[in-house]
Amino acid sequence: MTILLSVTGFDPMRWRAALEAADGDRDIVLEPARSDDPAIEYAVVWKQPPGLLENLPNLKAVFSLGAGVDHIFADRGLPDVPVVRIVAEDLTSRMSEYVVWRVLDHFRRGRAYRAQQVQTIWHERMQPAAREITVGIMGLGELGQDAARKLRVLGFQVAGWSRTEKAIDGIDTHAGQDGLDGFLAASDILVVLLPLTAETRGIIDAGLLSRLKRQTPLGGPVLINAGRGGLQNEAAILDALEQETLMEASLDVFNVEPLPSDHPLWRHPRVFITPHAAAVSDPDALAPAVMRQIAAHERGEPLRGVVDRAAGY
Amino acid sequence: MTILLSVTGFDPMRWRAALEAADGDRDIVLEPARSDDPAIEYAVVWKQPPGLLENLPNLKAVFSLGAGVDHIFADRGLPDVPVVRIVAEDLTSRMSEYVVWRVLDHFRRGRAYRAQQVQTIWHERMQPAAREITVGIMGLGELGQDAARKLRVLGFQVAGWSRTEKAIDGIDTHAGQDGLDGFLAASDILVVLLPLTAETRGIIDAGLLSRLKRQTPLGGPVLINAGRGGLQNEAAILDALEQETLMEASLDVFNVEPLPSDHPLWRHPRVFITPHAAAVSDPDALAPAVMRQIAAHERGEPLRGVVDRAAGY
Repeated sequence: MTILLSVTGFDPMRWRAALEAADGDRDIVLEPARSDDPAIEYAVVWKQPPGLLENLPNLKAVFSLGAGVDHIFADRGLPDVPVVRIVAEDLTSRMSEYVVWRVLDHFRRGRAYRAQQVQTIWHERMQPAAREITVGIMGLGELGQDAARKLRVLGFQVAGWSRTEKAIDGIDTHAGQDGLDGFLAASDILVVLLPLTAETRGIIDAGLLSRLKRQTPLGGPVLINAGRGGLQNEAAILDALEQETLMEASLDVFNVEPLPSDHPLWRHPRVFITPHAAAVSDPDALAPAVMRQIAAHERGEPLRGVVDRAAGY
Repeated sequence: MTILLSVTGFDPMRWRAALEAADGDRDIVLEPARSDDPAIEYAVVWKQPPGLLENLPNLKAVFSLGAGVDHIFADRGLPDVPVVRIVAEDLTSRMSEYVVWRVLDHFRRGRAYRAQQVQTIWHERMQPAAREITVGIMGLGELGQDAARKLRVLGFQVAGWSRTEKAIDGIDTHAGQDGLDGFLAASDILVVLLPLTAETRGIIDAGLLSRLKRQTPLGGPVLINAGRGGLQNEAAILDALEQETLMEASLDVFNVEPLPSDHPLWRHPRVFITPHAAAVSDPDALAPAVMRQIAAHERGEPLRGVVDRAAGY
């Protein structure tokens, strides 16, 4: 039995070493011996080349090396086998760090204080209490729920929106198109952790931004997107910033990555940009989870974290 | 019975309004009718003028309007009555927000990403996991313990140092002069929340900074001081930054406040400055706690949060 590892954009050798360290008895290859290699039973991928998996006759499952799986479904030659999303505490924890960091930096007026420091201005800004602010989280999967819990520990009110209804302790949940207006009207800071699907593509558009709460204790709404670039209309975000219907934004993901150096988002004074670094997939932390799942599946146990292909996540 | 309110550096009228809103039946004055006014039984103060309280014959207690009490003891004419520190969830929560914000901004490399954005550089930085970092907290009172708990929820290791030994679940505690070396050697990020006393004045000096852990997953140690300016030797901090034995610092407090505009700390690229704004005392949130304590004391109940005058906190 052979495991196929196909990684684009990261160092495949680090992943190979981590997978081998997790289980040294496995045969791991970086490409199939031939396109219909019968030895390959599992594929571990990040942005595999289209068609790579199409003709492997004995492929039993495909594992994604990150929280998202849209990169796998972008392959029209993807065979009809289970696609498995990594759920690992390391990845979840890193995403929540990013969310809490960005919420606090906007909430505690990091931008204003950095600007004051440049001018040596000693001036205390009005500071609401966390309990006066509602952070609205779009996407209530593992990542959204963990971020919500940590924000609540810090004292924030948390609202949540998801495609289907969910009841989560301490969170004011909303669902579906019918629930979106109420959710947006409640949110002082909007955090986007949605999966990218046909339904969510471009969801952060002019219409959505215009329905965010205008009068907030921070002087205007804040957008934080750590989901996928394809969720956002970047021209609409720039317009909303110009019209000051959006006060500030932190963006980790973009429609084109790397973000082109002439893109105006780079230079907007009220936008904070990170290079898709909110939650890095650490090979040493994630490889053991993949290898454990493969061993369990070989023993006849069901896979955990299988993606609902119709929903796309 | 009259309550004397003496506030320097903040708007006394906001405090008066909040105290009156909390209990409308009280007589609150901003200065004594005469220096030995027998009607005054309680004083509520922030940096009262020296000698103000010295000759009040019926003064029963002095309340501080913030977490610190060193400003009260700076008055050599302070009579021998109980001094009470405010312990309020609002104040504690604000301080923990500041601590978590600053820890995350250093830990998640906010400075590097802001610099990259100016140059439109798309480059992902090496990012350790929170569990690989130890945040060392000096001062394990209400504020230190709350910050420790919240940092642990985010996945950080937490060490703590206090004058006297304390056992706190999940925190690697150290105490006294003998425990200081081990504590400093364990800390990747040092958070200072100590009270200012004769013993702690100037404790953050060249000797202490030189004993911080050198090889950290972040490339060098980080200092965060939200306690009191008098705890730190600012020249020693600048030296340590220059010698790169200190990588970055977030300072909210200074020996002279406002920090003079020609002070080199303002302009140091690896220092982040806030104007003593880590945990603002919100009159509406804190006044009810003061008025409840006064009412309880009149009914013969003991005061809570009385300062140990020998220890100075």
